[in-house]
Amino acid sequence: MSSTKEEAPAVRVLGLWASPFVIRVLIALRLKGVEHEVLEEVVGKKSELLLRSNPVHKKIPVLLHHGKPISESLIIVQYIDEVWSSNAPAVLPADPYVRAVERFWAQYIDDKFPRGIRILKGTVDGNKDEIVEQLSTALQLLEEAFLKLSNGKHYFGGDNIGYLDIALGSHVGWVRAVEKIAGVQLLDAAKVPHLVAWADRFCAHPAVMDVLPDADRFVEYSVKYGSFFPTRSSTTK
Amino acid sequence: MSSTKEEAPAVRVLGLWASPFVIRVLIALRLKGVEHEVLEEVVGKKSELLLRSNPVHKKIPVLLHHGKPISESLIIVQYIDEVWSSNAPAVLPADPYVRAVERFWAQYIDDKFPRGIRILKGTVDGNKDEIVEQLSTALQLLEEAFLKLSNGKHYFGGDNIGYLDIALGSHVGWVRAVEKIAGVQLLDAAKVPHLVAWADRFCAHPAVMDVLPDADRFVEYSVKYGSFFPTRSSTTK
Repeated sequence: MSSTKEEAPAVRVLGLWASPFVIRVLIALRLKGVEHEVLEEVVGKKSELLLRSNPVHKKIPVLLHHGKPISESLIIVQYIDEVWSSNAPAVLPADPYVRAVERFWAQYIDDKFPRGIRILKGTVDGNKDEIVEQLSTALQLLEEAFLKLSNGKHYFGGDNIGYLDIALGSHVGWVRAVEKIAGVQLLDAAKVPHLVAWADRFCAHPAVMDVLPDADRFVEYSVKYGSFFPTRSSTTK
Repeated sequence: MSSTKEEAPAVRVLGLWASPFVIRVLIALRLKGVEHEVLEEVVGKKSELLLRSNPVHKKIPVLLHHGKPISESLIIVQYIDEVWSSNAPAVLPADPYVRAVERFWAQYIDDKFPRGIRILKGTVDGNKDEIVEQLSTALQLLEEAFLKLSNGKHYFGGDNIGYLDIALGSHVGWVRAVEKIAGVQLLDAAKVPHLVAWADRFCAHPAVMDVLPDADRFVEYSVKYGSFFPTRSSTTK
């Protein structure tokens, strides 16, 4: 059936396939089974719709829900969880304490990984050895957090992918890409075995596999676009 | 009645009176009517309890609830709202879209104000004129956000103090202090009249007035402790 009246879909995402922050939004929508359209931005340009929808930061991702814009990836993920709360699974854990713990680590991840990845890619200046050290420490802490939170199950969220799975998992593609680009090892099975196994499971999950490209595609992107590393949707401090 | 058995109160806050991030937690607890004890840290030192409770960032505030630690001020405020959800008023708005908008601005505030305030205090290097310009722009955007969100009422949260009131209001004391220290004007009634009136109302609110000292006390603190500006409870990027 074709529609004669043009109407924007209820849910649209302004994004770019290589952005971990966009990938978060797409995973959350897929987990919740929310139909959506992705409007792919052109690398290095910003569409009029993007500039109008996120005038403060001018960054992807933006979720447009019936035309109303929501920015900042983790805020969008929470919004999706709250709006489609009756669509299983819940993304945020039910227990307030566990929510607080997951929010803590999600914030920690965004403090450490985007900057570290940029430095290892060579698009931002910094001491690569120091960054490898910092990210390895971060992964060690996250390995410990995984053991506590997953409680012997497959994900940080238990049986299902949850908020912290999305927050960290969205970076896995770039982490593996910069391992190749910079010739370093971060997701090291000898040091963080549970996290390495978790990363494999996460990437193979039906809600993830089609929207999280493998490392080689990120490496190609990096070669092609260099400094146009997709940034998080907030200002850089 | 005196208790012979020593027992830690159910809710304790590791804090420092001059920290805007600690002030957030205290306001939320007071709004919800939650009894609590404040354990004041000594400036420039970190207690064993703090180091043990927040081993990742080693920063205040930490909320201890039945001994379980929660860190990061805005995460704590959400935790308080969720745990004592039946205690009016709700801190987060009920509508998911408004929640997302308030979370967006709260994150924006923590991107702009702490660093700007440190530079105007002179404890961090930076161009003061540029910072005044940036903070003035931020306040202008927040004035516009206030007009939309408050809908003619007293607070960002409407009739009651909400999440965004707490996020921005906690910085008002230091904003007014650095106006004196650096000889600049930020909360300018000619430019952001609604925000100036809101700030006065916020500071006079019963849940706020006893925990948000006036500007002169922050100026004194600044003179006394110099670089020991209370930092947010996350790592600085």
